[in-house]
Amino acid sequence: MRASKYTGNGRFETADAQPQPPAPGEVVIRVAYNGICGTDLHIAQGHMDHRVSMPAVIGHEMSGVIEQLGDGVSDLAEGQPVTVMPLRWCGECAACEAGHQHICQRLDFVGIDSPGALQQLWTVPASIVIPVPESVELRHAALAEPLAVAVHDVRRARLAAGETAVVIGGGPIGQLIALVARAAGASVILAEPDAERRAFAAAQGSAVVDPVNDDLAAVVEAATAGAGADVVFEVAGTRGTALDATKHARTRGRVVFVAIHPEPVPVDLHRIFWRELEVLGARVYEREDFERAIALLAAGAVPADALITRVVPLEDTEAAFDALLSAEAMKILVDVQGAAK
Amino acid sequence: MRASKYTGNGRFETADAQPQPPAPGEVVIRVAYNGICGTDLHIAQGHMDHRVSMPAVIGHEMSGVIEQLGDGVSDLAEGQPVTVMPLRWCGECAACEAGHQHICQRLDFVGIDSPGALQQLWTVPASIVIPVPESVELRHAALAEPLAVAVHDVRRARLAAGETAVVIGGGPIGQLIALVARAAGASVILAEPDAERRAFAAAQGSAVVDPVNDDLAAVVEAATAGAGADVVFEVAGTRGTALDATKHARTRGRVVFVAIHPEPVPVDLHRIFWRELEVLGARVYEREDFERAIALLAAGAVPADALITRVVPLEDTEAAFDALLSAEAMKILVDVQGAAK
Repeated sequence: MRASKYTGNGRFETADAQPQPPAPGEVVIRVAYNGICGTDLHIAQGHMDHRVSMPAVIGHEMSGVIEQLGDGVSDLAEGQPVTVMPLRWCGECAACEAGHQHICQRLDFVGIDSPGALQQLWTVPASIVIPVPESVELRHAALAEPLAVAVHDVRRARLAAGETAVVIGGGPIGQLIALVARAAGASVILAEPDAERRAFAAAQGSAVVDPVNDDLAAVVEAATAGAGADVVFEVAGTRGTALDATKHARTRGRVVFVAIHPEPVPVDLHRIFWRELEVLGARVYEREDFERAIALLAAGAVPADALITRVVPLEDTEAAFDALLSAEAMKILVDVQGAAK
Repeated sequence: MRASKYTGNGRFETADAQPQPPAPGEVVIRVAYNGICGTDLHIAQGHMDHRVSMPAVIGHEMSGVIEQLGDGVSDLAEGQPVTVMPLRWCGECAACEAGHQHICQRLDFVGIDSPGALQQLWTVPASIVIPVPESVELRHAALAEPLAVAVHDVRRARLAAGETAVVIGGGPIGQLIALVARAAGASVILAEPDAERRAFAAAQGSAVVDPVNDDLAAVVEAATAGAGADVVFEVAGTRGTALDATKHARTRGRVVFVAIHPEPVPVDLHRIFWRELEVLGARVYEREDFERAIALLAAGAVPADALITRVVPLEDTEAAFDALLSAEAMKILVDVQGAAK
């Protein structure tokens, strides 16, 4: 089989590799598509070299079909379309014991801390495999993982029908949060400086604001009769947006910092106090989020084809990373079985 | 009657003044005791001169007895012991309409934005008067307001019996939060650099830590089998404690920033994300918090005498502020009817 391996400093090498035979309780998946996400870009830029063992097969947004079952696996079948929820927990730490396995204190994020899906045959525990209905195209099923992130964010925010959500940042996760929020019956105001990304969000039904040239706070105030938004999602990840996010929420409103801020940044604690805001951390997803994501894909609630800018063969992995780093694309899928052109 | 007025720059003048006759719906209270709080100290230091109209009668932690009823007041009686919940809301803004009157967007905080209780006869709307049982000493009833703050903080945190709370800061509000938390059945670890304040908390049943010489994080970890605390209350109000507060909470733990940070300060958003923490703003109180505070006083659950460092006559208001500013005292009450010595 072929595998694409990160070798450091933005480089990927695609070469022959030996598939790993399935141990008891494992399955081998013939990977169909693998999406490239922001975390993968961090890895490619060397920001996470302390966590990945090079050469590293990364990739965790995927779809495929079951190729082979290890001993003792009875709830999956060869040929079945699947995706993977790429989390392995210890089951023993305080977080696991409290029922928060998805944020286990010793979490193995599959595709970062252990080998991922940028290989044609991927061996994983059956326990993290999630069936996909035949009606969902495999291209679309590769969006289940980022969509599950958005579902989790919206669920953590307890966003309800009739509420107003502000989404700051219109990259893939911001767009998916806006989609899931609207599917939940909320109105969405999405702030994004890039005109194409604004147009995408507008076409899906969000109100859009250019935060560089327009006053987001004034738009939110006007849209909510002076109250502020019920929920604010900060997905842009800049110091400025982190500082401003709290400004747009109503009294007792909820603010979810979705973007990852590796270092502490100034936060307006006075506003949190003054309006009795609720700030919620949200990380990855739980199984119900994945299942909801697949249900949304099956229901056609997600404009999957519009989100996928293009599909490239496995040999072109490195070029796909370069394109994403220059923000030329929303979502690029790697066709892991596809022949090089 | 006599009234003590803030005249700017730390100065108070006590002089004769005319009581205000009660309008319909108002009552006149003969003020017994008025406690001095951190916000009053901010006023005395000139930090809030933009908000107070000098000369200003301030004071909002009080007890007294009804002296006179205005027309139309039927649910109170002359001679009845009372306290005041010092909030007047507009009833029309988005916060009021959402049922969050206590954080009304045009809130009048009585004793700051309008005249307070450092006067012998105080005229207020009957709607903000709260009856006090005869069994509660008036000295103790003057603690109802700060105790209601603590009750509100603990309620916002949803602290439950059997949980562990970390209280960072052992001033009056920190001590009251620890008391209310223990009354709710929680275990408390209180961090405070001052040995006397630590001794006070320890005598009441909290575990105590000197955060300067000991490692609070290690103590919390040991006390919670590595999980972290269910709830952290940040009451110290320094940049360091604001940054560290999130460190002590377990996965999905709650962090309440009780201390007021006028300017944005660095917050560890990564920790909030990583452990899916919940940060809760908590401001003043609702009527049920006040009623719970009075019930705690009536039940003897609060060591009121130990909290009150001393009682001074109205003429000594300025000296009492000076003593509190040099941190010589936990809580000083002004005996508003008491003669000067």
